[in-house]
Amino acid sequence: MRHQLDEPALDWRAKGFWQPDGPVPDAAFGAAGHSLFGGAVTWPVLAVRRSAVAHNVATMAEFCARHGFSFAPHGKTSMAPSLLDAQLSAGAWAITVATSNQALACRALGVPRVLLANELLDPEPLRWLAREVDRGFEALFFVDSVAGVEVIGAALADRPAGAPLRVLVELGFPGGRTGCRTVEQVVEVAEALAATQVRLDGVAGYEGGLPDGAAVSAYLRRLRTAATELAHRGLVGPEVIVSAGGSAWFDLVAEELGGAWLTGHDLRVVLRSGAYVTHDHGFYAAHTPFRRIPGQGRLDAALELWAQVTSTPEPGLAIVGMGKRDAPYDEGLPVPLRIRRRSGVEHAVTGMTVSRLNDHHGYLSVPPDVELYPGDLVCFGISHPCTAFDKWRVLPVVDDDHTIVDLLRTYF
Amino acid sequence: MRHQLDEPALDWRAKGFWQPDGPVPDAAFGAAGHSLFGGAVTWPVLAVRRSAVAHNVATMAEFCARHGFSFAPHGKTSMAPSLLDAQLSAGAWAITVATSNQALACRALGVPRVLLANELLDPEPLRWLAREVDRGFEALFFVDSVAGVEVIGAALADRPAGAPLRVLVELGFPGGRTGCRTVEQVVEVAEALAATQVRLDGVAGYEGGLPDGAAVSAYLRRLRTAATELAHRGLVGPEVIVSAGGSAWFDLVAEELGGAWLTGHDLRVVLRSGAYVTHDHGFYAAHTPFRRIPGQGRLDAALELWAQVTSTPEPGLAIVGMGKRDAPYDEGLPVPLRIRRRSGVEHAVTGMTVSRLNDHHGYLSVPPDVELYPGDLVCFGISHPCTAFDKWRVLPVVDDDHTIVDLLRTYF
Repeated sequence: MRHQLDEPALDWRAKGFWQPDGPVPDAAFGAAGHSLFGGAVTWPVLAVRRSAVAHNVATMAEFCARHGFSFAPHGKTSMAPSLLDAQLSAGAWAITVATSNQALACRALGVPRVLLANELLDPEPLRWLAREVDRGFEALFFVDSVAGVEVIGAALADRPAGAPLRVLVELGFPGGRTGCRTVEQVVEVAEALAATQVRLDGVAGYEGGLPDGAAVSAYLRRLRTAATELAHRGLVGPEVIVSAGGSAWFDLVAEELGGAWLTGHDLRVVLRSGAYVTHDHGFYAAHTPFRRIPGQGRLDAALELWAQVTSTPEPGLAIVGMGKRDAPYDEGLPVPLRIRRRSGVEHAVTGMTVSRLNDHHGYLSVPPDVELYPGDLVCFGISHPCTAFDKWRVLPVVDDDHTIVDLLRTYF
Repeated sequence: MRHQLDEPALDWRAKGFWQPDGPVPDAAFGAAGHSLFGGAVTWPVLAVRRSAVAHNVATMAEFCARHGFSFAPHGKTSMAPSLLDAQLSAGAWAITVATSNQALACRALGVPRVLLANELLDPEPLRWLAREVDRGFEALFFVDSVAGVEVIGAALADRPAGAPLRVLVELGFPGGRTGCRTVEQVVEVAEALAATQVRLDGVAGYEGGLPDGAAVSAYLRRLRTAATELAHRGLVGPEVIVSAGGSAWFDLVAEELGGAWLTGHDLRVVLRSGAYVTHDHGFYAAHTPFRRIPGQGRLDAALELWAQVTSTPEPGLAIVGMGKRDAPYDEGLPVPLRIRRRSGVEHAVTGMTVSRLNDHHGYLSVPPDVELYPGDLVCFGISHPCTAFDKWRVLPVVDDDHTIVDLLRTYF
């Protein structure tokens, strides 16, 4: 392939922004006081409401403090340095990540401690992690099999003695995702680790795939049993980490893992919620634990997807210029919230739904009492923050009157 | 939010590459002769097979030449400058785009002509487009309503006389996406355009949403009728553009729109296929017209997603480290093709399927005769190139022995 087109000229063209003659949208752009509707962005754009993020970050920090939990918010949700920064500033103990690249990004950013919530088996990233741990980086990751311990051992066979790599044994559940299926398997993995330079610091699990609260509670009690068993056998300690918790069941984590139940050890329960940081108008709006424990807080949906009506081709149908490239569609489609006319007049809308997405088109079902015109803007809430952030490289942060006050960059 | 983390240090950390101490993967990296399996990338990674892309680009160029069509391959599929470059080098008449940002990217790259296959209604991008047209940029876009023509006219009301903006009126079909529903509406829009500084150059449509070949053929004949009607009324010409064609029905476009059927005018039929450039192992493998016209060519699937087995927690189930962040899942899940052992031994696999994806996890159903171990790599084909490319910022291009020979950057 020829490479005669001029690639570097593209570096500053982030989807959503309209700066044809300008530099990359930078901190100065973020501070210039542009209105979201003043021509500095084009459609579609995914905006982050600053007040909602600040509220959510504070709410979960308070929840963890109230229950004596350490918080390692899942950074994979946004991979946005300024959000990780806000989470650390609010007292997060670590940032959770899903992949070696995300750990690398966090290390480069200066995040002091990461929890890699997967088994790390690739030799180069393993050796890199060992070197960084020797330089003071704090990192933990998961293991769930004796075979995995052997792969890790082989990758590190030539490593000089140094600071220990630290792991948590993952307990899963039959029919679930990763993780040992039984407490006996957890013990086997722990025993295999004892012969290596990898140090066992506790147990971890993920309850998000379970069908209901009863199953989640039973699973969390098994996680507690696994930690107790390892402690009693002298395979872990004196500090014992027990980690669980997405954004759908942290009330039950508090119920089942709260308190000082591991006598003779320093217990650190680590919650790993990620999606809470922006919350949503879909899946998490329906599933947040704060619906069950309203006295302990609430989350605000922080993401607004703005798109333009490009066509109103037949009664009851409007096409907007946003699609699978722009909006999550894996846990529910975008939720129309408001219409903004070309005049600037804005009003809430009910009864309108998104019926389908193509790559760059959204199909709106429009009830008879709603008039939509080409050029109107529609503001959508989204469902599932993780598959929203990864579709955008730069997002405007807006205050409550839609002045752009900051930019988020994502690193996926 | 505080911004104390060190953001610029992240610029070079593209998912899939493992260069913890190195610079951004650049042209020199692409020419260094790294093996895909030598530690320069980590998992998951989406690799592009160079030979397959070269074959596909040549195949569609030949198809268009054989039928006398102009080709405006849809750049939204990859938004990868080196692929657009290869398409232009093979004789493409224009690059099709879906959004104003994509038009801006193409202009910055030096693409001489774009076809924006949507109605452009946002004032700032419209005025930018008018300025660039005055500077020699060739650009066409779609309109589908009198209301849209009015919005465009309002945005350009203060424009000094200059080179005409050029549009195609879009004809859709009842129950479909954008586009006039009838030929009469096409004529109405054309008549509204006659009072503006926007020039009508022809008609366009998209047949991809129709249920079967008979419906596609009937629709394409209506598109032909619309062009004929505009020409006979003197609303378009002397050159008349008729544009259609995704990657699923271009054989019928050849049947229905081929030949010199518009007497007295210079007819230019413009095909807009995009997904053909990498083809796939899923939707397009099943739907490519070359299955119906094998004598006219074939396409090769060019995208390989490599992921590592991180867990084999119970019989019949393996978890691989790739998920919704890495692989398309809107038109079928990834297709397991081969296993590569830690020893480097590779073999094809049949009977293994992906049953589900989470954000960073894939669930593999493993038949009893297949053994998978933590640390094994699995090579997957994908379904739907458009939702594969947009999940990656940099992709390694590999030759047939998996030596990295180039890099693709994407600009979404």
